[in-house]
Amino acid sequence: MRKMLPGVGVFGNTPAMRCYIPILKSCGLEVVALWARTAEEARQMSDDLGIPLYTTDVDKVLLDRRVDLVVISCSPHIQAHIAAKALGIGKHVLCSLPSGPRSRDTLPMVHASRYYPRLMSLMCNGLRFLPSVVKMRRLIKESGFVGTVTVCEVNVHYCSSGVLSHKPSGRKGSSYSTTAYDWTCDEAMGGGVLNLYGGMVVDILSYVTGLRAIRVQGMVRTFVRQTERVSGIREITSDDFCSFQMELGPDGACATVTLNSQVPGPFVQEITVLGTLGRLTLRGADLYGQRYDRMKEDLLHFDPTSLKDVEALGGGGGGGTGHLHDGGDEVDSTATTLSNPHSTISTSAPTVISHKMPAPYLKGVVHMLECVRDAFQQVEEKQGWCPDPLADAATFEDCFYVQTVLDAVRTASKNRQSVKVVLTDSEPEPNPFLSTAMRRSTFSLH
Amino acid sequence: MRKMLPGVGVFGNTPAMRCYIPILKSCGLEVVALWARTAEEARQMSDDLGIPLYTTDVDKVLLDRRVDLVVISCSPHIQAHIAAKALGIGKHVLCSLPSGPRSRDTLPMVHASRYYPRLMSLMCNGLRFLPSVVKMRRLIKESGFVGTVTVCEVNVHYCSSGVLSHKPSGRKGSSYSTTAYDWTCDEAMGGGVLNLYGGMVVDILSYVTGLRAIRVQGMVRTFVRQTERVSGIREITSDDFCSFQMELGPDGACATVTLNSQVPGPFVQEITVLGTLGRLTLRGADLYGQRYDRMKEDLLHFDPTSLKDVEALGGGGGGGTGHLHDGGDEVDSTATTLSNPHSTISTSAPTVISHKMPAPYLKGVVHMLECVRDAFQQVEEKQGWCPDPLADAATFEDCFYVQTVLDAVRTASKNRQSVKVVLTDSEPEPNPFLSTAMRRSTFSLH
Repeated sequence: MRKMLPGVGVFGNTPAMRCYIPILKSCGLEVVALWARTAEEARQMSDDLGIPLYTTDVDKVLLDRRVDLVVISCSPHIQAHIAAKALGIGKHVLCSLPSGPRSRDTLPMVHASRYYPRLMSLMCNGLRFLPSVVKMRRLIKESGFVGTVTVCEVNVHYCSSGVLSHKPSGRKGSSYSTTAYDWTCDEAMGGGVLNLYGGMVVDILSYVTGLRAIRVQGMVRTFVRQTERVSGIREITSDDFCSFQMELGPDGACATVTLNSQVPGPFVQEITVLGTLGRLTLRGADLYGQRYDRMKEDLLHFDPTSLKDVEALGGGGGGGTGHLHDGGDEVDSTATTLSNPHSTISTSAPTVISHKMPAPYLKGVVHMLECVRDAFQQVEEKQGWCPDPLADAATFEDCFYVQTVLDAVRTASKNRQSVKVVLTDSEPEPNPFLSTAMRRSTFSLH
Repeated sequence: MRKMLPGVGVFGNTPAMRCYIPILKSCGLEVVALWARTAEEARQMSDDLGIPLYTTDVDKVLLDRRVDLVVISCSPHIQAHIAAKALGIGKHVLCSLPSGPRSRDTLPMVHASRYYPRLMSLMCNGLRFLPSVVKMRRLIKESGFVGTVTVCEVNVHYCSSGVLSHKPSGRKGSSYSTTAYDWTCDEAMGGGVLNLYGGMVVDILSYVTGLRAIRVQGMVRTFVRQTERVSGIREITSDDFCSFQMELGPDGACATVTLNSQVPGPFVQEITVLGTLGRLTLRGADLYGQRYDRMKEDLLHFDPTSLKDVEALGGGGGGGTGHLHDGGDEVDSTATTLSNPHSTISTSAPTVISHKMPAPYLKGVVHMLECVRDAFQQVEEKQGWCPDPLADAATFEDCFYVQTVLDAVRTASKNRQSVKVVLTDSEPEPNPFLSTAMRRSTFSLH
């Protein structure tokens, strides 16, 4: 007998959320309640995606009896609090990256996840579930395809929609964003290319290589500070270019990452892991490899989700050609809403998803949410779940590591010197001077 | 009446030199004398390329009356001294990059070039003469294609021949390298990917954007320290991976450069210059561009030198497809020698050039040496030359800037913090402690 799957409450109206909801529905997980920051945003989203209950009150979703699983993708600076509260009430939580502007912001959810180990508390980094990434990890960690990892190189290039006024496709035309200035423009609220894509990259590198950053250096820059729609006294403070380097693990491996959200052209992501025996390269959603003893590179995993399949789900751009111009179509960022926006709940498969997510991430999220469904289906009890299908997912602990690395990159860029990555698992002292003095006095005792 | 072109004396037996000599000949510049480090190397090279006079005595080439132009491409740590001496004797000089392991090593040639301004004293960075690069520069500086330059991104990937023992094509099989360990393995002699390609990149970025580095940070690494052929007490000290960032000019532009000589696959070079209006990307020898108001990138300059043309000159690999796998074929590094190695001087067009130089560089060098020929042809007097055709060439001053930036990158990597680029145009104090003391006493006077 197929069990009743848990009901889902969603927080936020980000482009990512507009991808998650139709996928959740197609997996058979009913989305019963929706929270957004403003009533207008909530109503709009509810109309667009056919969710019966919408509200601006966090508790109204959390306390809804039908809600067993909470999916969060809103402004990063409030995600951790919602996640912690949800866990406290006994709901499972899936949370989007970035989880906060700073690592200390993620502490409430990290502590809550430790306190309620039986509840699902996972990050929604779909890339970990992309078949090419899964294969990449297996080849590195089990088959020894690249030997000992020496260098990781990552490039993420895309053209941020709506930042530059003269670009053809701004958010202006989309149906859900009425304000030009939102958290993505504000560094203090968790915006910026480092937080958005840097986090994913740091997570994926630690996932596929098993190595963690011990020291970082970097350069974080904001070039576009004002646009046609963000002007006057308002200024964009979130970074649009970032280059950072990490020293990985104890054996001297390192990584260099370049993120740029101002490159005209399609979304391009390339992740190369190089070792003593060869290299593996993830281009878009496909995996290529070449060992030193081979004359040419081989296609090791072609993503079977074709261009047409992705378009059926509404995610744009094709993977799989191996060209630089592989990937999602961030350029064509106009959101496509449901054909019948005023329809009531449609638990059947979705028709169209927003074009907002790059193809590799979208494909990964589809795989991940299928695993979430499987996890719930394998246990009879309604709220129960089996961790096995989600063994590869990023936990809140992983997320804390990721945000700590990103913090270190920001500090390194500011101080123009490399910074050690130290996981400080407690709230910082409210009085740093007192704290320093106390530390000194402790030293003098020894 | 066509004037008699100057005779050429060449120093060194590097792979680059093996490319220069046939090109020089095809331009009508007769190569009359050759210097190499050992008698064996000199004899071998003379046989291979049909040069009548070979020697291990620097003066024998410099003092040869037929030699008016000296071309230098040997171990970087001795290049500057040969160049300075040649200028002192009144010979024109073309010198290869890198010009030294450290910037102070280049000072003798810089000073000599200032002392003899009438003599040709240029760096052989062919990339500056590549039509795509010339066009790139014009589009940035004159047409304002990219607007104000914000970010430059550079990637150079190739598979260094002969470093990894299990690679199919080592230098073992080539005809001219009998020792496994040479200056390319030794950081102190000027080897390493930062010195070899970093210098070219720094030079080209300053050439196309007109911006110079004011501050750098970086990470320089040597992963492969021993191979089958370099083992025992010998160790490779030159870097094989480097990632560095530069702050360019006063307006906050920056550049990130990744160089990696251990990537299995063909030679790949991509240089992107991004500005407020769009981007320009040099892939291999072709130029692509996209402005923000365009939906796709355009091929702005296709290098007309076809694969076949390059192969006729012996340079491998094809440019012009726009794929990542564009570029020269460093993989197939077996040098192809002249079909008749014992032939005497052949001033006619060359048949085959060593496969050692990546296609964009090789194509550029062909253009540059044609300009050298034109420069001499435009003036009747045999030693005279007209600077106009070579206005774009890198001078020794440019080279000093480049080496200073590379020094700063090395220091930044060592100290794990960013370093200011300061052109110190004098030999350092032999006693650094005394120097510091003196500087302090000077400060106290003010």
